[in-house]
Amino acid sequence: MTLTGSLLIGGTERRGTNGEIRGLDAATGEKLEPAFGGATLQDLDEACRLAAEAFDTYRETSLEDRAKFLETIAQNILDIGDELVERCVLESGLPRARVEGERGRTVGQLRLFASVVREGSFLGLRVDPAIPDRKPLPRVELRLRNVSVGPVAVFGASNFPLAFSVAGGDTASALAAGSPVVVKAHSAHPGTSELVGRAVTKAVKDCGLPAGTFSLLFDSGRAVGQGLVADHRIKAVGFTGSRTGGTALMKIAAERPEPIPVYAEMSSINPVILFRAALSNRGEAIGRAFAASLTMGAGQFCTNPGLILAVEGDGLESFIAGASEALKAAPASTMLTPGIHKSYCEGVAKLTSHGSVEKLAEGQVGERFQGQAALFATRAADFLSHKELQEEVFGSSSLIVRCRDEAELARVIDALEGQLTIALHIDEPDHASAKALLPKLELKAGRLLVNGFGTGVEVGHAMVHGGPYPATSDGRTTSVGSLAIARFLRPVSYQDMPQDLLPQALRDGNPLGLPVRTDGKLG
Amino acid sequence: MTLTGSLLIGGTERRGTNGEIRGLDAATGEKLEPAFGGATLQDLDEACRLAAEAFDTYRETSLEDRAKFLETIAQNILDIGDELVERCVLESGLPRARVEGERGRTVGQLRLFASVVREGSFLGLRVDPAIPDRKPLPRVELRLRNVSVGPVAVFGASNFPLAFSVAGGDTASALAAGSPVVVKAHSAHPGTSELVGRAVTKAVKDCGLPAGTFSLLFDSGRAVGQGLVADHRIKAVGFTGSRTGGTALMKIAAERPEPIPVYAEMSSINPVILFRAALSNRGEAIGRAFAASLTMGAGQFCTNPGLILAVEGDGLESFIAGASEALKAAPASTMLTPGIHKSYCEGVAKLTSHGSVEKLAEGQVGERFQGQAALFATRAADFLSHKELQEEVFGSSSLIVRCRDEAELARVIDALEGQLTIALHIDEPDHASAKALLPKLELKAGRLLVNGFGTGVEVGHAMVHGGPYPATSDGRTTSVGSLAIARFLRPVSYQDMPQDLLPQALRDGNPLGLPVRTDGKLG
Repeated sequence: MTLTGSLLIGGTERRGTNGEIRGLDAATGEKLEPAFGGATLQDLDEACRLAAEAFDTYRETSLEDRAKFLETIAQNILDIGDELVERCVLESGLPRARVEGERGRTVGQLRLFASVVREGSFLGLRVDPAIPDRKPLPRVELRLRNVSVGPVAVFGASNFPLAFSVAGGDTASALAAGSPVVVKAHSAHPGTSELVGRAVTKAVKDCGLPAGTFSLLFDSGRAVGQGLVADHRIKAVGFTGSRTGGTALMKIAAERPEPIPVYAEMSSINPVILFRAALSNRGEAIGRAFAASLTMGAGQFCTNPGLILAVEGDGLESFIAGASEALKAAPASTMLTPGIHKSYCEGVAKLTSHGSVEKLAEGQVGERFQGQAALFATRAADFLSHKELQEEVFGSSSLIVRCRDEAELARVIDALEGQLTIALHIDEPDHASAKALLPKLELKAGRLLVNGFGTGVEVGHAMVHGGPYPATSDGRTTSVGSLAIARFLRPVSYQDMPQDLLPQALRDGNPLGLPVRTDGKLG
Repeated sequence: MTLTGSLLIGGTERRGTNGEIRGLDAATGEKLEPAFGGATLQDLDEACRLAAEAFDTYRETSLEDRAKFLETIAQNILDIGDELVERCVLESGLPRARVEGERGRTVGQLRLFASVVREGSFLGLRVDPAIPDRKPLPRVELRLRNVSVGPVAVFGASNFPLAFSVAGGDTASALAAGSPVVVKAHSAHPGTSELVGRAVTKAVKDCGLPAGTFSLLFDSGRAVGQGLVADHRIKAVGFTGSRTGGTALMKIAAERPEPIPVYAEMSSINPVILFRAALSNRGEAIGRAFAASLTMGAGQFCTNPGLILAVEGDGLESFIAGASEALKAAPASTMLTPGIHKSYCEGVAKLTSHGSVEKLAEGQVGERFQGQAALFATRAADFLSHKELQEEVFGSSSLIVRCRDEAELARVIDALEGQLTIALHIDEPDHASAKALLPKLELKAGRLLVNGFGTGVEVGHAMVHGGPYPATSDGRTTSVGSLAIARFLRPVSYQDMPQDLLPQALRDGNPLGLPVRTDGKLG
C-alpha cells in the first residue's frame, strides 16, 4: 500500500488543503514522507453529513452483518502485513514486539465486539406484556431496546497508535453499538492512521455498508477536532489523551445547543500502596517488579505506576533499594514524539528542582529523544501541601510518598484525585489493613488490583478502564472491555406497537433468539 | 402528625433560619400554616457531610436490608394516612383521587425498587477467571460489580408532589443504588414534603441505618439548591422541572472542579402524529380522546400532548371538531401554584396573539387559579419558521400543525427537538407510512406509542421516561421504571483480589446467588 496523505471521507479519498501534518521518525525527529493534508471545515462537514446519512442504515444492520464487519476490519488490518508494523515503529518509536502485540490487541478488541454484537445482551431487550384486565387501569404493553446514540467522534491517542486510535477500542465499541464513526487522527502517527483507515474503509466496502459509516480526518491545528465535537450530527465523543485536551472537549460538548457525552480518558497516576508485611517479606522484589512496570514502553501508559504510598521503615528501604538498582540498569527508550519527550523532561526537571522532593535514582542516559527513567521521594506532609505533586508526568517517572504511619497514609489516600487503577501489595498479615482501606479505594479508582501493577489492561468482560474524574470525564463507564459499548447506547421504549412496526428483535416469539427480560425476569 | 416547618437533617429536626417558605392553598392562593424555615448554607453543609459519612455503611447494606428499607418507607408513607392526602390536595390543587393514585404510584415505585435490589442484576456482576497458562502472558482474574456513585441530590418536582418528589422515583432509585439522598423540597408543597420526609426519616431509624442516609432541606431562594449541586460530596443530581432550571443545574455541575452527572427531565411537547386512515376512520373519536388526555390534571404532565401533527384534510377537520367540542365542555381545573397558573396564562396569551396562530377552541372559564384549556392551530410553514412555537406551555394548551402533505410532515418532524414521547395514531393502511417515519421518531424520543397518549407513564421494567435533549439532560437514561437505578451506578473492577477482600457478591461459589456473567456468559 502506498501512503498518499489523503483524508478518507466516507469511502472517497481527498487531499486536505488546510495545512499539512508530517509524521516524524520518533528516534531522530526527522520528517517522514508523505505530507498529510489537513482537513478543512468543509471536509469535516462532509464527513459528518455522510455519517448522519449512513446512520439509519448502519444502525439497523443485522447483528450478524455488523459482527462480520468488525471481523472484516480486523482481518483487513492483519492483511496490511508488515508495512503497518514498520510504519508504526517508525512513527511511535515503540519496539517492534510491542507494536505487534498492540496489533494483536486491536484485532482482538474488534473480534470481542463482534462476539458482543452476536450475543445481543447489549440491546437490553425488555418486554412488559399488556394486562388488559388490570384494575383500576389496564396495563399497556411496553417493549424496550437500546439504540445507538448517533454518529460518534473518536480522537486517536498518541500512546496506543493502534489499540486506542483509528480502529481502537472507542471505534470498535461505537461501531458495535451501531454508530458511524468520524476519526480525528493523532498527528503523531498519520501514516499508521492512514493504513488502518484504509483497512476500515475497505471493510465498509467489502461489507456493502453505507460509505459514511467511517471517515478519517487529519487536523493541522485544533479547529477540526473542536469542530467535530461541536458538530450537531455528532452525538458522543471518545478521547484518550491529556487532561487539558479532554477538559477542553468536555467544555465544547457541554456548551453545544444540544450537549453530548464526552468519554475522555485523561489523567491518572495510578497509586501503588505497599503494605507492611509485603514490604517486609519481599520489599526488594516488589521494587524490581515496580521498576520493570514503570519503564515498560518508556512509561507511556495511562496506567503507569506514578505514585508509591507506603509507611516508612526497613521494608520501604528494601523496596527503594530494589527499585533503584533495577532502574539504574534500565535503558532509556525512545518516546512517542519529540513533544512528549520534551514534556517528560520538563516534568522530571520540575520534580528534580522541587524543594520537597528528593531524587532517588535515574535510569540510563539515552539518545536524543529517549526518556531516562526517574524515581523520586517526598514526605506525606509535603505531598499533602503541594497539589502539583499529584500531576501526571507522562513517562517513566514515579514518586514515592513516605508516610509516618497508617493514619497519614489514609490521609494521603483521601487527598487523591480519581484514578484509573490503584494497586495494593499485600501479604496475608496485611489483609485486615487492606480491607479497611478498600471502601476509600473503591471510590477513587475504576480498578483495584492486588500484587501487580496497572499496566497490562486485559480486554475482557470484567475490565473497567475508567474511574472518577479526572481519570476520566465519566466514571460511570469503561473504555476497555465489552462494557465499553454501553457508552454509545440509549434506551427506547415502544408502547402498544403493532408487530409489523416493531424492531424485529422485539417481536413476539423472540425471532432472533436474543436475551430478553420479560416483566423484569431474564430467560 | 403536626407539621413543624423544620428541616430534617440526618435524623434531627432543626428550624431553618434563612427566610421562610409557605405552602399556598392552590385554589385560593392563601398562605397555609406553618411557615417552613429556609436552610442556611451551614445546614446544607451538614446534610452533605452526614450523607458522605453515611455512604460507606449505607452502600454496603445487604440487599435484603436495603430492600426492606425501601418497603419500610412505602409503608410509613401509607401510615401517614389521610393527613398526607389532604395536605397534598390543599397544596397542589390536584383532585383527591389523583393524589390517592399518585400515592399508590409512589409506594409502588419504592416496592418495585425493593424487588430490583433483591433480584441483584443491577450490580452487573461479572467474573473473568484467571488463565495462568495463557500464552504469551497469563490472564489475570477480573471481577466486576457496580457501586453507587455517591450521595445524590434530588429536587422535588412541582407537578408530582409525591411520585417525583421527596420519596419519588429519583429518591427511590438512588437509595436502591446505595446512594444517600439529600432532597431539596419544592416550595410548592412544603407540608407534603415534610410529611413524606418524616416517613423516610422514620424508616432510616426503623431500619437502623446511618442518620445521614436521608436529609430534607427547604430553600427560601436558590442558593441552597445551587449549593447542593456544587457540593463536592454530592456525586449526581436528579431533577424534574423547567428547562431553565435544569440547564442552570447542568451548568453548575459541569463547572465543578469534579463535574458530575445531572439527570434533568425538563421540557417536552410530546408530539402526536395523526395518520390519514386513522383520521378518516375515527378522527372525531381521536379528537375527543386527545382532549381528555390534554385536560387531565390541568395538563400538568411532562407527557402532556402539546403538539399535533397531521396532513390537512377532512380527517383532520373531524379530529378538530371532536377535540374542540370536548374541549369546550372541559371544566377549568386548579393549577399547581399561582405562579404556574400565571405562566400558563402568559403562554396561552402569547399563542393567542401570535400572528401565525389561530385559536380553535377554549375550555370553560374557571375560578381565579384555574387553567382554561386551549387549542390552537398553525401551518407547518409557519411552525418551521417560528422556533418559539416549539416551546412548552405547561398546562392544557396544545397546538395543531397543519401539513400540506407527508413530505412537509416529515420536515416538521426533522425540526423537532428531543421529546419524552411521540404518539402515532394509525390504522392498518397507515402502517407503511408510520414505518417509514419510525427511524426518525426513534431518534427524537425516549418512548414511541401507538393509538394512545403519553400521559400515563407505566412504572415497569420496559419504560423509558427520558429522551434526547432538551427532553432530558441525558438521553441515555430513564427517570421512571427499574432502569432508573442505572443512573446512580458505576462499575469497579477487582483484579487478583484474595477472597476475603472481595465484596461478598463476587466471591467464589456465588454465595449470594445473584446473576453473574462469567466470561461474558450469563448463568
